[in-house]
Amino acid sequence: MSQIYNRVALIGLGLIASSMFWAIKRAGLAGEVTGYARGQATRDTARRIGLCDRVCDSAAEAVKDADLVVLCVPVGAMEQVARDIAPGLKPGATVSDVGSVKRAVIEAVAPHLPDDVYFVPAHPLAGTEHSGPESGFAELFDDRWCILVPVPDTPDAPVAQLRALWEGMGAYVDEMEADHHDLVLAVTSHAPHLIAYTMVGVADDLRRVTDSEVIKYSAAGFRDFTRIAASDPTMWRDVFLNNKEATLEILGRFTEELFALQRAIRTGDGEHLHDYFTRTRAIRRGIIQAGQDTDAPDFGRKKTTQ
Amino acid sequence: MSQIYNRVALIGLGLIASSMFWAIKRAGLAGEVTGYARGQATRDTARRIGLCDRVCDSAAEAVKDADLVVLCVPVGAMEQVARDIAPGLKPGATVSDVGSVKRAVIEAVAPHLPDDVYFVPAHPLAGTEHSGPESGFAELFDDRWCILVPVPDTPDAPVAQLRALWEGMGAYVDEMEADHHDLVLAVTSHAPHLIAYTMVGVADDLRRVTDSEVIKYSAAGFRDFTRIAASDPTMWRDVFLNNKEATLEILGRFTEELFALQRAIRTGDGEHLHDYFTRTRAIRRGIIQAGQDTDAPDFGRKKTTQ
Repeated sequence: MSQIYNRVALIGLGLIASSMFWAIKRAGLAGEVTGYARGQATRDTARRIGLCDRVCDSAAEAVKDADLVVLCVPVGAMEQVARDIAPGLKPGATVSDVGSVKRAVIEAVAPHLPDDVYFVPAHPLAGTEHSGPESGFAELFDDRWCILVPVPDTPDAPVAQLRALWEGMGAYVDEMEADHHDLVLAVTSHAPHLIAYTMVGVADDLRRVTDSEVIKYSAAGFRDFTRIAASDPTMWRDVFLNNKEATLEILGRFTEELFALQRAIRTGDGEHLHDYFTRTRAIRRGIIQAGQDTDAPDFGRKKTTQ
Repeated sequence: MSQIYNRVALIGLGLIASSMFWAIKRAGLAGEVTGYARGQATRDTARRIGLCDRVCDSAAEAVKDADLVVLCVPVGAMEQVARDIAPGLKPGATVSDVGSVKRAVIEAVAPHLPDDVYFVPAHPLAGTEHSGPESGFAELFDDRWCILVPVPDTPDAPVAQLRALWEGMGAYVDEMEADHHDLVLAVTSHAPHLIAYTMVGVADDLRRVTDSEVIKYSAAGFRDFTRIAASDPTMWRDVFLNNKEATLEILGRFTEELFALQRAIRTGDGEHLHDYFTRTRAIRRGIIQAGQDTDAPDFGRKKTTQ
């Protein structure tokens, strides 16, 4: 694949940034990739494992002459980073990010950027429960979606260029308005994560069942919850604080529905339960058909004999 | 491995029974395995794919001369099956089951069994989101737990024999009292399943977000919920109706905790959220150390480059 940007700067070197670096290298999408992380230990690790062509000791140094700057820090850290890099941005550069919420990031970042750069917020829908500079891998974005959320009056060219980069890293790309993005993600990601965190906390609190029992007997169900609940605490704290309205709306609906199912259990209304459970199967089939998951039993953890 | 039973009868031919058959054959644990399912289509499928050494057209025929009879039907169907097979059971035979709740199964089955058979309820903690006679595979129980719940006054010999069978099928075996089993499973499996069903239903109801958007953008979080929520509706209806008390207790605690986290989001209490999310990570580590899951990123869906 051909080069999309001459120089790319990654600010923050966690799971997403490190995966971007390996994906950019895999396809030769940039001439040089610089990187910066606030922590000295992170920068040392990055240098040791060859993450980024050049690891810089300041954000200003990393963004110098960069054609694309991608903010890969927790949502709550975006505003400070925007302030730090703004004076050193090259005129005509594109600034993007990978935050899980978009309205709050736009409000935090856009006011600090000079008029002669383009801001094209983005959100790759990919991740694992691991974090840090050593957790990245080139295939993370393959066949996953990346949503671009251009701010009003952005010309087509910088958006198309960023789209080409994400496609080059293996992703499908879509565009969406910021508030709609935040609602869709509240449903598909933010509320499910909060629910998983809650259930894992409840299990831990229950004194009559030991942690060892919970752990030993967590075959189906709970095990998937713990995977979700093991994600980075700082990232998720910032997601909930910055997508407050949509998350609370979805959780309100969730509680209503859960109460209705609890009532069905209490009153022994088997038909209500069966109908509900039958309906949810269809969504699962849709996800498999949309290619967002595998149909292999148990996520392919075990081989089948057939 | 050596033969544990001369003849085993499997009543009901879904995911668990079909996996038991392949696991028994893999290790040569029984001389002959007979099978029965209520549906003609299921019996036809079983005959076509070679599931069971002999597929019978009645439960009475299947259990004739069997040394072990395993009830592999939904919990709500256990009582009728117990009535059907009771007259044909061989004296000295062991009757077991694989139901996800144990107190209700004991109450439904035990009164109908003759005095000269042993009842040793069991619950293998293994499954996939698939069901039916073609979904089984020999490795399903490998390194998973099977909990035996012997009723009072059962001699050691039939319990030890059933334990040997499950160990021969690859499982770890534990023993537990029925009510404690039902509480442990309410935490690790039943409540998480109801929660996953609920969240999938909420997503489907939300008119401002299309099903297509939910499906396309369900990278992390929601995707794992749909897997859980795709499980067999009849089985799960029966689980909730038959483990009512423990499930409702856990859901009550869950709702309390969820309200506390919602309040933290609403009031912007980032410290509360961060502390909570940090605590849940530890449980996840415990599960990986206990060998109940893989540490591979994203459940091994993607290969890493490192």
